[in-house]
Amino acid sequence: MNALNVAEYTQTLGLQAKTASAQMARASASTKNKALKALARLLRENVAALAVDNARDLERATAAGLSAPMVDRLKLSPQVLETCAQGCEQLASMPELIGELQGLKQQPSGIRVGQMRVPIGVFGMIFESRPNVTIEAASLSIKSGNACILRGGSEAIESNKALARLVQQALLEAGLPEDAVQLVQTTDREAVGQLIAMPQYVDVIIPRGGKGLIERISREAKVPVIKHLDGNCHTYVDDPCDLDLAVRVTDNAKTQKYSPCNASESLLVARGVAAEFLPRIGAVFAAKGVEMRCDPEALQLLSPVSGAHLTAATEQDWFEEYLAPIISIKVVAGVDEAIAHINHYSSHHTEAILTRDHVHAQRFLREVDSSSVMVNTSTRFADGFEYGLGAEIGISTDKFHARGPVGLEGLTSLKWVVLGEGEVRS
Amino acid sequence: MNALNVAEYTQTLGLQAKTASAQMARASASTKNKALKALARLLRENVAALAVDNARDLERATAAGLSAPMVDRLKLSPQVLETCAQGCEQLASMPELIGELQGLKQQPSGIRVGQMRVPIGVFGMIFESRPNVTIEAASLSIKSGNACILRGGSEAIESNKALARLVQQALLEAGLPEDAVQLVQTTDREAVGQLIAMPQYVDVIIPRGGKGLIERISREAKVPVIKHLDGNCHTYVDDPCDLDLAVRVTDNAKTQKYSPCNASESLLVARGVAAEFLPRIGAVFAAKGVEMRCDPEALQLLSPVSGAHLTAATEQDWFEEYLAPIISIKVVAGVDEAIAHINHYSSHHTEAILTRDHVHAQRFLREVDSSSVMVNTSTRFADGFEYGLGAEIGISTDKFHARGPVGLEGLTSLKWVVLGEGEVRS
Repeated sequence: MNALNVAEYTQTLGLQAKTASAQMARASASTKNKALKALARLLRENVAALAVDNARDLERATAAGLSAPMVDRLKLSPQVLETCAQGCEQLASMPELIGELQGLKQQPSGIRVGQMRVPIGVFGMIFESRPNVTIEAASLSIKSGNACILRGGSEAIESNKALARLVQQALLEAGLPEDAVQLVQTTDREAVGQLIAMPQYVDVIIPRGGKGLIERISREAKVPVIKHLDGNCHTYVDDPCDLDLAVRVTDNAKTQKYSPCNASESLLVARGVAAEFLPRIGAVFAAKGVEMRCDPEALQLLSPVSGAHLTAATEQDWFEEYLAPIISIKVVAGVDEAIAHINHYSSHHTEAILTRDHVHAQRFLREVDSSSVMVNTSTRFADGFEYGLGAEIGISTDKFHARGPVGLEGLTSLKWVVLGEGEVRS
Repeated sequence: MNALNVAEYTQTLGLQAKTASAQMARASASTKNKALKALARLLRENVAALAVDNARDLERATAAGLSAPMVDRLKLSPQVLETCAQGCEQLASMPELIGELQGLKQQPSGIRVGQMRVPIGVFGMIFESRPNVTIEAASLSIKSGNACILRGGSEAIESNKALARLVQQALLEAGLPEDAVQLVQTTDREAVGQLIAMPQYVDVIIPRGGKGLIERISREAKVPVIKHLDGNCHTYVDDPCDLDLAVRVTDNAKTQKYSPCNASESLLVARGVAAEFLPRIGAVFAAKGVEMRCDPEALQLLSPVSGAHLTAATEQDWFEEYLAPIISIKVVAGVDEAIAHINHYSSHHTEAILTRDHVHAQRFLREVDSSSVMVNTSTRFADGFEYGLGAEIGISTDKFHARGPVGLEGLTSLKWVVLGEGEVRS
């Protein structure tokens, strides 16, 4: 396809999605759930067929010299497909959101005013590598009564095409329009530029992928973007604090897994407990090979820890999302300095205070300007499933519309409903 | 100021607003209400002084040849100031939104998860002519715990400066930072371009003014915009329908006032009731001098009405927001065609169905994709005060974040709060 053809093609997808979205918006809960259950069945029935398409992506990736972990992320194993199928069934069993009418109240004029939850319309999802995102996005879109246009990575194009065919088959089985979920069939990059600039057809863009991709999309999009940039999460050990709890939680926040965005990247410690706490957590980090990038005070307190990998932190370290066995450590005067430091350096994702002081806890919750604020627990809990949302579309580091872990509600909006009996305005 | 100085100046306002916003976010309800009451008192005490500053704007406007209604909108009469003062007192008496914790639920891991309402941070408001908007925006900003940067029209600059001084005096009296409400002191247009492109300082922009201004801001802004474009509102008279009610409500929706965005601009009538209904409403419109732009069927049914000003509607008429004694009229087959027509031509502001049929009413509410949908009442009710919001920042025709009339909640966001007792993730 040349650029002109790509533009035309993307516009066609947009128009088809917009048309399908009106049908999805009025679909009943049982129809949508029927499609989700059909999709779960089709995924299980097609494990072997999907392996054939998936193998073509895997061969191409291996031939192109992709690293083993990258190739692994492309793999549609029976286990991955079973997880996808179970995800669809779980969504089918969740309560219906759409059409819910809330807060209907009578006003002095006589009219009754409330708000109804409705689908947002059409969303575009742009993602890299893992093909199972096709099923996650499609099933969330069906459940929430939206239409969507999916743009996966070129390295998974054959797998994505095969999965999208199953999704469309499931939609048709349930009597829903197949255009409710469309996969962009070309790997041309121009299609992304088009997709994010069609406000007449697409209501919101959800990118999932590297920081470069998300920054580019945020900059160029002509529609709202639910974006997730860095997770530079902080754990602050306050004075007074239960230090056993602090060691256990700080260890979990940093080392339970290094790659997730909700892992803590920076540790702040109140001066009053630093001399006792830092050597204890330092020994844990040393044993696990975690590099500690410290301010001068922390460096001094940690220097007696045997086997500790200590370096002096630079200004840039306070901003850094390592996603690796590295943590920045700073001694602060107390809760005021901790809050000020976090609000300055954080990416506004998730921050935790570990404390026994009720007033400090309340101030931290109220004054730290991040999408999740926690008391006495691990930042690793910032997750749609852990929060009970049932499904997670992404984690938003924005303040607008959806903030933090975004569930199905993030794909809906509230419109005003007014019921009258012939009232007129005077 | 030259362009470089304007850029520097606007950045300084941004930094000051950001700093002040942290203090506003933790201010107690009583402190904010104290500032609002002080502002009300200062407005009343300074009626004479404000008249002097206002007179300079009025003289300049008259000398520049502005029309009498335009000059009138600039006027800070004692009545206008008293209304502003009462607005501040009303806000002071409204319940506090900030800090409210909702839906705290225990999860299987043991953590308790809920959401806390917090200020959005810093908003920029860009408005034209009426200086009383300075007080409306400032008081909403104080109540919601935000900081704001206000950019009024150049024609009201002296009045706005005088009002902003009183706002800052009220803030200081209550012990709040004066930078929580800042007026852009230059009338240089470059300042608007700067204000809408500082995502590091400004979280959302709210423009109030003509369509040209709002379109330009939406196109160029680097931060979210709560925007209100057209109000091409529809009233649909269904079959079956109480025609007495339909005549009364349709008349009100069109003629009670022509200029508001929630006035109906288009009338759709089900074929089954058109022959009886159209001559009746046509007589009302004829008596009030309302021009009727009709499709061929409506034209024929209305032609016997004596004194009716009838013209043939063009395609463009179905899109038009007249804000004048003009209405477009079309006969449709029924509720399906009405919904399809509205979803195609509407500006997604407000639409009403007048009907006796329960199923039609439910379908209209669910399927019409507008920010307000109504049954058996006048579109003129689409208004923050009529909806019981207490105060209105604007009416959003977007689906994202805030939709329809936007009250104080539109200036807040929800962050996640997690309370634990040392839980870790496994």
